[in-house]
Amino acid sequence: MKTQVCIIGGGPAGLMLSHILDANGIDNVVLERQSKDYVLSRIRAGVLEANTVQMLRDYGLSERMDQIGKPKDGTRILWENRPEFFIDVKKWTGKQMMAYGQTYITEDLYAARDRDGGAVICEARNVALHEIESDSPHVTYEKDGVRHRVECRFIAGCDGFHGPSRKAIPERSRSEYLREYPFGWMGVMVEQPPLDDFIYAYHSEGMAMAAQRNPMLSRYYVQAPITDTPEDWSDERFWDTLLHRFPADVAAKIRTGPTIEKSMAPLRSFVSEPMRHGSLFLAGDAAHIVPPTGAKGLNLAFSDVHYLQRALVAFFKDGQGALIERYSDTALRRVWSAENISWRLTKLLHVFPGEDAFAQKIRENDYDLLLMSEAAQHALAYEYIGLPFEA
Amino acid sequence: MKTQVCIIGGGPAGLMLSHILDANGIDNVVLERQSKDYVLSRIRAGVLEANTVQMLRDYGLSERMDQIGKPKDGTRILWENRPEFFIDVKKWTGKQMMAYGQTYITEDLYAARDRDGGAVICEARNVALHEIESDSPHVTYEKDGVRHRVECRFIAGCDGFHGPSRKAIPERSRSEYLREYPFGWMGVMVEQPPLDDFIYAYHSEGMAMAAQRNPMLSRYYVQAPITDTPEDWSDERFWDTLLHRFPADVAAKIRTGPTIEKSMAPLRSFVSEPMRHGSLFLAGDAAHIVPPTGAKGLNLAFSDVHYLQRALVAFFKDGQGALIERYSDTALRRVWSAENISWRLTKLLHVFPGEDAFAQKIRENDYDLLLMSEAAQHALAYEYIGLPFEA
Repeated sequence: MKTQVCIIGGGPAGLMLSHILDANGIDNVVLERQSKDYVLSRIRAGVLEANTVQMLRDYGLSERMDQIGKPKDGTRILWENRPEFFIDVKKWTGKQMMAYGQTYITEDLYAARDRDGGAVICEARNVALHEIESDSPHVTYEKDGVRHRVECRFIAGCDGFHGPSRKAIPERSRSEYLREYPFGWMGVMVEQPPLDDFIYAYHSEGMAMAAQRNPMLSRYYVQAPITDTPEDWSDERFWDTLLHRFPADVAAKIRTGPTIEKSMAPLRSFVSEPMRHGSLFLAGDAAHIVPPTGAKGLNLAFSDVHYLQRALVAFFKDGQGALIERYSDTALRRVWSAENISWRLTKLLHVFPGEDAFAQKIRENDYDLLLMSEAAQHALAYEYIGLPFEA
Repeated sequence: MKTQVCIIGGGPAGLMLSHILDANGIDNVVLERQSKDYVLSRIRAGVLEANTVQMLRDYGLSERMDQIGKPKDGTRILWENRPEFFIDVKKWTGKQMMAYGQTYITEDLYAARDRDGGAVICEARNVALHEIESDSPHVTYEKDGVRHRVECRFIAGCDGFHGPSRKAIPERSRSEYLREYPFGWMGVMVEQPPLDDFIYAYHSEGMAMAAQRNPMLSRYYVQAPITDTPEDWSDERFWDTLLHRFPADVAAKIRTGPTIEKSMAPLRSFVSEPMRHGSLFLAGDAAHIVPPTGAKGLNLAFSDVHYLQRALVAFFKDGQGALIERYSDTALRRVWSAENISWRLTKLLHVFPGEDAFAQKIRENDYDLLLMSEAAQHALAYEYIGLPFEA
């Protein structure tokens, strides 16, 4: 098979890139290791930046989002023994966020790919990248026991942290930056109406968080030691801990019940540089991971896709290679800004075991400064909603 | 001897407090361990916040400052391989800073105390605090071999990090917060015209800094390992290192020469809470130390003096004790904000040995964010000039 761009990974980043390239008449193929049902069963982020919302609207993918998604002006932070703070994105940037689950976006993208006759090959096993330093790389994979080969001009590695794309770049040609945290988020789903807002609650025993998937599906998290497993957290223990970490007036509004899912998400910051090597581009989790605090993961993948589609369209439609050359540097500036705000929110809102008392005082002052300084409020809102795309 | 307030320490904080109390008809005595000449020979900070400038003006102490001090709109940051950034205090806050050395302020304060007949007892040795938990504490000291006793209603401990005041508070009644840095500032004085501006230069080998004392006296610093001594730094080595860390165009303007002083200042963050115990108040370095980055030390001492004189005046003139009760909490909020910005500027501008590569990338993004985000510029300027006093 021959195509212009071979996209590895059929998650939101790969599908969105495929959709945009198609809209620009650029031939492409998506290879996804799992089945479509499996991809759609993954439970992930649920908060979209204004940039992400705009991309979905620009490319005709927003119909359901605009029907059932919930625009949000910002995010609440509750703090043990201190006043509440609202990250007022609307007030400081004029923008809004959107509560709309990643699963819905993936469904919408698959539906659009199906409708437009996009080439999405699921259950493509043993994907391997070849001759990525040349102008004619190819990708091999197996499906139903048969080996296939895709020849292309470029490969887009949208295959997540564990995929083969990043690993195809020689180690001597890349630098990895990693920070692992000694805690994770123990999360549950419960079939109950969620709270109206996204809420982070700082408590001296650990963070708690309230999120939402749809009007009858709530998602809650508590900070837990990295070594904990879901078996360590009975429903009773989970709810006791969660309610204890929220102020009483908010805890009273949380609708608990039997959980339908329980899982432990480790927190990690990771970047691999550069994001292009020869004819291979990386986008999304293939190149970087953020901790979930701030909900930047999916949005950052869309940011990469924005810069990547722009570079590929300029190359194929106008014969211009400059944006190809700039892709890694441009994408990485936004990546590091997202890593930075994700790290700072993680530091602000979690209890760090072993930390000295001075650091805890600085954390409290960081919060006090948000309460008292409009300039600090503005600066946080600006970063929280995500930086504008570079021209 | 009997007085209303016994002030321990004849540095800027103690003298300023004495001056203000006198202006309000409150009797006080200052006890200084060293000779006046010794106090005036100490070389310290040289940048005043707008709040400090205003206090000096409000109490008739600004004549010389307004003649020879140099108003500054902000501070320059130079960064290896990146554009320059200006912390534009004037633009974002409407305020200015003032370049005016601490030695001058101390001279001005001693002159005012002499003129007004203030009781300042220098070379008061073996100062000790007694019965500070009572309403009638007293202070003992020795001078010229004779033991003296000062009875008072309150004691103001303005005697610096090493003075006896903080140590007079029982350990069970206070908490100490300490962060020590693995580097210090190797500083020199040279009788040459300084650069026009205060400049921090970030370099991958360490920070460098240009400051000034007067039109013919420059002060320069380089970050150095905490274990270094002035003997490790010949003039030649110092100037080579300094010029190497500044961009060539700025380095070309630095006027070097034989240094007339060379010293190593360790960097430390320290706070002792609370700042009042019974009839004893702490102010300035007696309660807290900041690293010199951001030049907050003297300004923070004046901030404490502002809150303390207000509390004492309300007590003695109006019989109101509420501000006495609130002094520690109110002063500490501003202390922690100063500790926070001093720590963040220290982190931003120095090389931290042993730090991981992720932290270095975050540092670079912090700087890039300043270059690109007006909200971040505003937030930094707001904190850099010092928070407004609380009502």
